[in-house]
Amino acid sequence: MRVYIQRYPVGVTMIGAQVAKIIESKNPDFPVGRRIVGYLGWRTHTIINPHRSSEYEFLSQKPTLVPDIGDLSPSLYLGILGMPGATAYFGLLEICKPKQGEVLVVSGAAGAVGSLVGQIGKHVFGLTVIGIAGSDEKCKWLVEELGFDHAINYKKGDVEVALRKAVPKGIDCYFDNVGGDISSIVIYQMKPFGRIAVCGSISSYNADSSSLPKSTILQPSFVFNQLKMEGFVVTRWDNRLSEATKKNLQWIHEGKLRYRETITKGFDNMFDAFVGMLQGKNIGKAVVQV
Amino acid sequence: MRVYIQRYPVGVTMIGAQVAKIIESKNPDFPVGRRIVGYLGWRTHTIINPHRSSEYEFLSQKPTLVPDIGDLSPSLYLGILGMPGATAYFGLLEICKPKQGEVLVVSGAAGAVGSLVGQIGKHVFGLTVIGIAGSDEKCKWLVEELGFDHAINYKKGDVEVALRKAVPKGIDCYFDNVGGDISSIVIYQMKPFGRIAVCGSISSYNADSSSLPKSTILQPSFVFNQLKMEGFVVTRWDNRLSEATKKNLQWIHEGKLRYRETITKGFDNMFDAFVGMLQGKNIGKAVVQV
Repeated sequence: MRVYIQRYPVGVTMIGAQVAKIIESKNPDFPVGRRIVGYLGWRTHTIINPHRSSEYEFLSQKPTLVPDIGDLSPSLYLGILGMPGATAYFGLLEICKPKQGEVLVVSGAAGAVGSLVGQIGKHVFGLTVIGIAGSDEKCKWLVEELGFDHAINYKKGDVEVALRKAVPKGIDCYFDNVGGDISSIVIYQMKPFGRIAVCGSISSYNADSSSLPKSTILQPSFVFNQLKMEGFVVTRWDNRLSEATKKNLQWIHEGKLRYRETITKGFDNMFDAFVGMLQGKNIGKAVVQV
Repeated sequence: MRVYIQRYPVGVTMIGAQVAKIIESKNPDFPVGRRIVGYLGWRTHTIINPHRSSEYEFLSQKPTLVPDIGDLSPSLYLGILGMPGATAYFGLLEICKPKQGEVLVVSGAAGAVGSLVGQIGKHVFGLTVIGIAGSDEKCKWLVEELGFDHAINYKKGDVEVALRKAVPKGIDCYFDNVGGDISSIVIYQMKPFGRIAVCGSISSYNADSSSLPKSTILQPSFVFNQLKMEGFVVTRWDNRLSEATKKNLQWIHEGKLRYRETITKGFDNMFDAFVGMLQGKNIGKAVVQV
């Protein structure tokens, strides 16, 4: 949302996904009382034609009905069963391409995407998983509740040293949500033929595009260890979205995936919730309940 | 050579490829008078068992007989018909995966590898090719003799502006020999799903490994445009080496590839020739004739 909105003129309704309840309908396929998920923007109420693409060019999927998932909250379609869940699933599977026994490092590890990436890596692929996050509370959650092998609080101590200590033989896969200095540190500890999935670059989202931050250059490590790095946006797998949702739901039921939501109440608190998320105040998916 | 030698202890004979004439032989497959090419190090005379791998762990191919190539110089087996030729061929083909009509940028474009990458791109794949090099003489050679569409002297003027002017619609493929600031500039002008082959990082070879240079971070452009970057060493295609040599020889005969050698005479001038090459004083392959 932080990045995509920059492509639109000032004044456009802020981009964002919603799970919304249908309160009026002229379409029998979308009956009153059911819920839909879609890119409806930051709105309390929306009038839409569900057969039309979203108004947002870069996130143009049509809204879809939220299926019945029993006791689980429909808000999961904004997180583990929605776009963040698919981002974690496809990014790890298709870009990192991990093999059992390999070492995976995840930055932004306590966020909606990172926390899933680490768990899928650990409990589905059998990887050794190291998370990098920004508080002791987050690190504790990653290790004690989600089963990460190790978590590093980048705000305390030296990430380079901590990482070398945790995985002295090096790193096979890096799932990157942050970019910048932390990523340079991780990448210089990668093994030959290591793979890097670049999902986000939150460390630079506030920088002016004409004065982006500088970090240690990556090319020497790329040549030396024949590394591969690929940036991705989950929309490239739009036609396989249901595969990710199905797997993630199955893994929730099997006890392999846990999740957390940081819920802010009230539409008027949306902005603060959003900025707080960018500052790392949330654990798991940041949701605003209207 | 500059990078690999750092993996060996001080005192080891400097790594390097030679075309050498056989002046004594106990092996009928390697008769006196024929020439071999191999990683023999910086030596005037070498006693070897040709069935044994090279002493250099990272460049361990066995020496091979240089075939008869008529009027062409056997020294081409150090350049266009040897490792640099294969590096250009496989790096462009297998990492950049160019499609006809795309835009290719090559840095270090007047070097042994870069000058071939651009020509293969232009005359074999039908790409629009922009070279970045360090002198007007090199740029003139690239455009007027090798057929590059455009060449930019990075020591004169603003590469970012010159590049945007040369290819306003953006770049599909980037073959990178230099790393650092120039690469950040190129990468921020790439199109969605652009591919980057990292062949070298000559801009940082003199830096201490504990204080590598910093440049504008790459992750924002990677996410935004879903770019892919891969570092490579040509040895990964050792079993396909003859394919590259055959193709490059064929393209020489068809007039598609031209080459140049910067020849330094005398073994004692080896060091100066080597440092000169790292400073960009050569055009095409730097060869020392003993």
